[in-house]
Amino acid sequence: MAIALIFILSFLGLVIAFYFMKKVTDIPLDLGLDTEESGRLKTIHGAIAEGAMAFLKQQYKYLAYFMIGFAIVIAVLIDDQHTPDVREGIFTAIAFLFGAIISILSGYIGMKVATAGNARTTVSARNNIADAFVVAMNSGAVMGFALVGLATLGLIVIYLVMNVVLPEVENNVLMEVIAGFGLGGSSIALFARVGGGIFTKAADVGADLVGKVEKGIPEDDPRNPAVIADNVGDNVGDVAGMGADLFGSCAESTCAALVISAIAFSADLNAMLYPIMISAVGIPVSLVTKMLVRVHTEEQVAPALKKLLMISSGIMAVVLYFITMWMIPDSFEINGEIYSNMGVYWCFFSGLLSGLAVGLLTEYYTSDQYKPVQDIAKSCETGAATNIIFGLALGYKSTVLPYIAIAISIFVSWELAGMYGIAIASLGMLGTLAIALTIDAYGPVADNAGGIAEMVGLDKEVRRRTDILDSAGNTTAAIGKGFAIGAAILTSLALFGAFLTHSQNLMRELPEFGANYDLIGSITLLDPVVFVSLFLGAVLPFLFSAMTMKSVGAAAFDMIEEVRRQFREIPGIMEGQGRPQYAQCVAISTQAALREMIAPGVLIMCTPLAVGFLFGVTAVAGMLAGSLVTGGVLAIASSNSGGAWDNAKKYIEAGNLGGKGSEEHKAAVVGDTVGDPLKDTSGPSLNILIKLSAILSLVFAPFFVNYGGLLI
Amino acid sequence: MAIALIFILSFLGLVIAFYFMKKVTDIPLDLGLDTEESGRLKTIHGAIAEGAMAFLKQQYKYLAYFMIGFAIVIAVLIDDQHTPDVREGIFTAIAFLFGAIISILSGYIGMKVATAGNARTTVSARNNIADAFVVAMNSGAVMGFALVGLATLGLIVIYLVMNVVLPEVENNVLMEVIAGFGLGGSSIALFARVGGGIFTKAADVGADLVGKVEKGIPEDDPRNPAVIADNVGDNVGDVAGMGADLFGSCAESTCAALVISAIAFSADLNAMLYPIMISAVGIPVSLVTKMLVRVHTEEQVAPALKKLLMISSGIMAVVLYFITMWMIPDSFEINGEIYSNMGVYWCFFSGLLSGLAVGLLTEYYTSDQYKPVQDIAKSCETGAATNIIFGLALGYKSTVLPYIAIAISIFVSWELAGMYGIAIASLGMLGTLAIALTIDAYGPVADNAGGIAEMVGLDKEVRRRTDILDSAGNTTAAIGKGFAIGAAILTSLALFGAFLTHSQNLMRELPEFGANYDLIGSITLLDPVVFVSLFLGAVLPFLFSAMTMKSVGAAAFDMIEEVRRQFREIPGIMEGQGRPQYAQCVAISTQAALREMIAPGVLIMCTPLAVGFLFGVTAVAGMLAGSLVTGGVLAIASSNSGGAWDNAKKYIEAGNLGGKGSEEHKAAVVGDTVGDPLKDTSGPSLNILIKLSAILSLVFAPFFVNYGGLLI
Repeated sequence: MAIALIFILSFLGLVIAFYFMKKVTDIPLDLGLDTEESGRLKTIHGAIAEGAMAFLKQQYKYLAYFMIGFAIVIAVLIDDQHTPDVREGIFTAIAFLFGAIISILSGYIGMKVATAGNARTTVSARNNIADAFVVAMNSGAVMGFALVGLATLGLIVIYLVMNVVLPEVENNVLMEVIAGFGLGGSSIALFARVGGGIFTKAADVGADLVGKVEKGIPEDDPRNPAVIADNVGDNVGDVAGMGADLFGSCAESTCAALVISAIAFSADLNAMLYPIMISAVGIPVSLVTKMLVRVHTEEQVAPALKKLLMISSGIMAVVLYFITMWMIPDSFEINGEIYSNMGVYWCFFSGLLSGLAVGLLTEYYTSDQYKPVQDIAKSCETGAATNIIFGLALGYKSTVLPYIAIAISIFVSWELAGMYGIAIASLGMLGTLAIALTIDAYGPVADNAGGIAEMVGLDKEVRRRTDILDSAGNTTAAIGKGFAIGAAILTSLALFGAFLTHSQNLMRELPEFGANYDLIGSITLLDPVVFVSLFLGAVLPFLFSAMTMKSVGAAAFDMIEEVRRQFREIPGIMEGQGRPQYAQCVAISTQAALREMIAPGVLIMCTPLAVGFLFGVTAVAGMLAGSLVTGGVLAIASSNSGGAWDNAKKYIEAGNLGGKGSEEHKAAVVGDTVGDPLKDTSGPSLNILIKLSAILSLVFAPFFVNYGGLLI
Repeated sequence: MAIALIFILSFLGLVIAFYFMKKVTDIPLDLGLDTEESGRLKTIHGAIAEGAMAFLKQQYKYLAYFMIGFAIVIAVLIDDQHTPDVREGIFTAIAFLFGAIISILSGYIGMKVATAGNARTTVSARNNIADAFVVAMNSGAVMGFALVGLATLGLIVIYLVMNVVLPEVENNVLMEVIAGFGLGGSSIALFARVGGGIFTKAADVGADLVGKVEKGIPEDDPRNPAVIADNVGDNVGDVAGMGADLFGSCAESTCAALVISAIAFSADLNAMLYPIMISAVGIPVSLVTKMLVRVHTEEQVAPALKKLLMISSGIMAVVLYFITMWMIPDSFEINGEIYSNMGVYWCFFSGLLSGLAVGLLTEYYTSDQYKPVQDIAKSCETGAATNIIFGLALGYKSTVLPYIAIAISIFVSWELAGMYGIAIASLGMLGTLAIALTIDAYGPVADNAGGIAEMVGLDKEVRRRTDILDSAGNTTAAIGKGFAIGAAILTSLALFGAFLTHSQNLMRELPEFGANYDLIGSITLLDPVVFVSLFLGAVLPFLFSAMTMKSVGAAAFDMIEEVRRQFREIPGIMEGQGRPQYAQCVAISTQAALREMIAPGVLIMCTPLAVGFLFGVTAVAGMLAGSLVTGGVLAIASSNSGGAWDNAKKYIEAGNLGGKGSEEHKAAVVGDTVGDPLKDTSGPSLNILIKLSAILSLVFAPFFVNYGGLLI
């Protein structure tokens, strides 16, 4: 029954996605345009779509090599000495590839529809804002529903294959394989987020510095070879990157819960599948919510988006009560502790609530409606330096309340259902993922639509309307970021707990430790290995941030060179005769992005492996805790500083404190540029860092236990 | 014998300080000046000295209230239920006041001689650079030797009073009282560092923005009412603030070692006094080093300072071998572990070595001789934004190697002699404190000397010479900062260990825990209270940084108002007729600084108390570990980003990349201004944050154990 329901809901998600896809593509690309406009629009739209494909092709080639190589590493290093019948490592490697492919697919679908929806939003905005809103929302919905549907489908398939097709499998192996699936999704997320982040910021800076500054042509001018890369960048970073990231979050937090369920509920199918069901149920709930909210006037756009989040959260809170009562037994035992189904529900609820709290706090700190951003804008009166100081201080300060909200949720869930509770709380944050992703993907579609309106040269009213859509999306995107960071922290903590429990179980099977070995009780703060590794784990996020921030700079330099070359070598480019090689710029940005992300990628993938191999499980535990704690702070601070600088600039551009072109505006632009890599590259990548190192350690726990601790 | 030797060496320190003081003040203030120059110099010199006194008066008034209030809190809250004969709380409160007074005294002496030495360095620089070097060094030496002499004298007096005068005292009480002494020193350090940091940056910005920008008068012009405050600021922040800070470090790391010794070596007087002896022996070693190094030419200045550090470290390494063999028994036991005297020596040595390593790494990342700063300077070619991004990235990245160096020292010391080893390692970093402080205080004296030369209008050659002295001091100051951060981390860790051991001992006396209660073994990472408090402890340093950074802004605004008022209201001020009210500006800066530092001060002093009272000892442990780990990273990153921006600006001003007045220079100035509060206010204050919260918890451990954990 539960299995059938999950299958039905997963397919429902895919059908909904397909339906919205159809609704978007049914709109003629050049709806109501005259021939000349239509030609221009098709050229531009084609260039963006072509550019996005060029990026995907390049990226997938790199990723294919990486995934195959890493799958081999998994197959070889993960030993199955406890399970003579089944090749644990090989199954894990296959699950890893499966997770990676689904992650790639999610990003691909999202990008495909986003590049189809952007121009259609533009032409619909010529009629009225309500039409444009619907097109942009439907485009976003394709990604939202497809991604969640694919995630739940993938998870249930893995579960069935392992449990039904190979019924002799041990729970430890099942746990390992499920974690492999999450690792696959998360690894792709790392590449997509970091690469996408570097890509979009490199294109942004390249287009601005050569086009606007050196050649004096306006923003979004089709003669600028990097202008398409810039628009592609929005899709690459904000759609594909974010999609892979949140697919990773969803897969990982479900994995974290499943891994614990695999031991606690091995005989109770319903309870076992509960974590997958949470995400699956989010699909119809999101659909209902989407149908409930309509927009008729401009004023309704921003409240509508917030309403979507609130209503879906409310419905989820009610529906999940019944689901929990149905699927989770009245009382159950994990590691000797007794928990109740009501307790599990409160875990879910605390996650949902603290997710909302973090989201709304993020909005408070980054929206120009409130004092923090207005203070930053005011600090521009005394120049760029005070703007930077106030922005950094705001970012630092803005970590406190979200951390308290998350800490409360951690404490409550832990007390109510241990590590299982933490995993459920993180699913609570991600329960409304389909709708949250819809809104997140809606933003870049609206953003692109504005760019296209400008490039085609449509009426200013069109741009004004898309700007309203875009700016409403920015605010809600901030809320979404809050959810993502909160969920990442909770997921990592649950995975951390799963890693320790799993390692302890594996160690207990070894004669040198014995069946009563208390690994978890030995991870004390006053142990030299734990403290030193905690201490060193704390610098990892800082090193990773430094690397990605500098990468943006290096990639931007490459782009500048390429744009200059095209202006120099293509005849008639400035007169609009010669067609700029858009794909070339996209390829340059892609190559630079992929090259620059190797070092941070290797750092994240290899550090846990090296630490575990050289210093053993205890050191990995300390390192994970250290980087989890500082990674979360740095992620929130980076995102919020960046968001606040961005909106302080927009606040000034809206005519406050001297407006566009004033000294205040120049100071604000400096802040915005500093914030770009922080909020779009290093900040969001830190989410992945903490989740990825945790799930990587979980997958490689057998390796650490059997062969690790070489130097200790 | 050991007691007598410590007394002799302490008095030697004071005698040396007095000798150098005499040597400095014997030089006529207006050596070789004509009557007119002499008059101007005396006016300016008097104004700086007067300003410094005005600051001290204001500050001491505030501090007196605070110290008395907090002493009462200590006396009331620290219960003596285990020691019916002795009022533990009252003794601790007295020790607290004693530590505070010595700390104030150290800062006072340092500032007194620095304001006497500055003008004498100026006039000596008219002869030749060697004379000026000697005067500036001697001024610094007064503070260096006086401070170490006072610290060791204070510690030995506390020990004797408690042990000889009140021989019935328990070791637990002795430990408590010694910690109270450290807490007193550290609390003053907090106020001196934060207040001084805010003062100096407020005066700096105020003088620049109104004087240079609004009134168009040159830098260091005596008509600017804030110019004296600016010069006072150098003394307040870099002499008094740093002196109190390092007195705190020295007192605290000695306390940490003594607290452990009080239990381990209660019957072995020599071993008990070993930690005090390390600092005491540093006095003659520093003196010998100082006599060995001479400067004759300009080129010798910078190498001479580095030589001082290297030679004193070398001599200490040799001398301490014999001291350790003499004072520490061949083998001894702490908490059931057996350690050796050779092991203790290696702890000392590893601290010394890693201190040097951190110092040299700091130099590498912040000196314009090396690639990192040159890269930052180059990034100014593309504007202020890239300068900020590269500078932030450099700061983040520069935390990795120092953390590894410190981690190795932690691990080695821990393995060789447990927490006692960590405390000895931190004393290893601070062993050459007298000479390190001499160099640190030499810097602002040389800096002031340059300002005075400019204001009096002496020959440009004088300013050129003081600039050479100043710039050599900057590099060595960076090395000194590295030592300070490293020592703060090790000290805090040792205090953290002492806090847990002390709490465990106190708990074992309570019937509800019993004699075998294993508190330390229960502080595991997979405990909800530990993890949540670790998690929340991690944001404390970020909040503290945000508060101090914004305080600099607020204080600067006050200063701007006051300077504008004086220009408006004092007749003839612009013509040089009306004398500006320098003391008024100093008072404004003082008041603003003291007002602005209340909030961060309360945060640091109250958070551990509140956490312990509400959530108990376990929560305090998690919080301390969390803020220790992130506080260290943030301190290094802030100091190094700030130092690198400062030197990138100077590198450009030296004629590279366009030189003074170029676009690159403007971009570099933005970075420098952003770096100011980071490197001179929030960064160094974080050192104190981590030490202070640890020692505060140690002192209040009886309170937490007896009355804490209200909500858990």
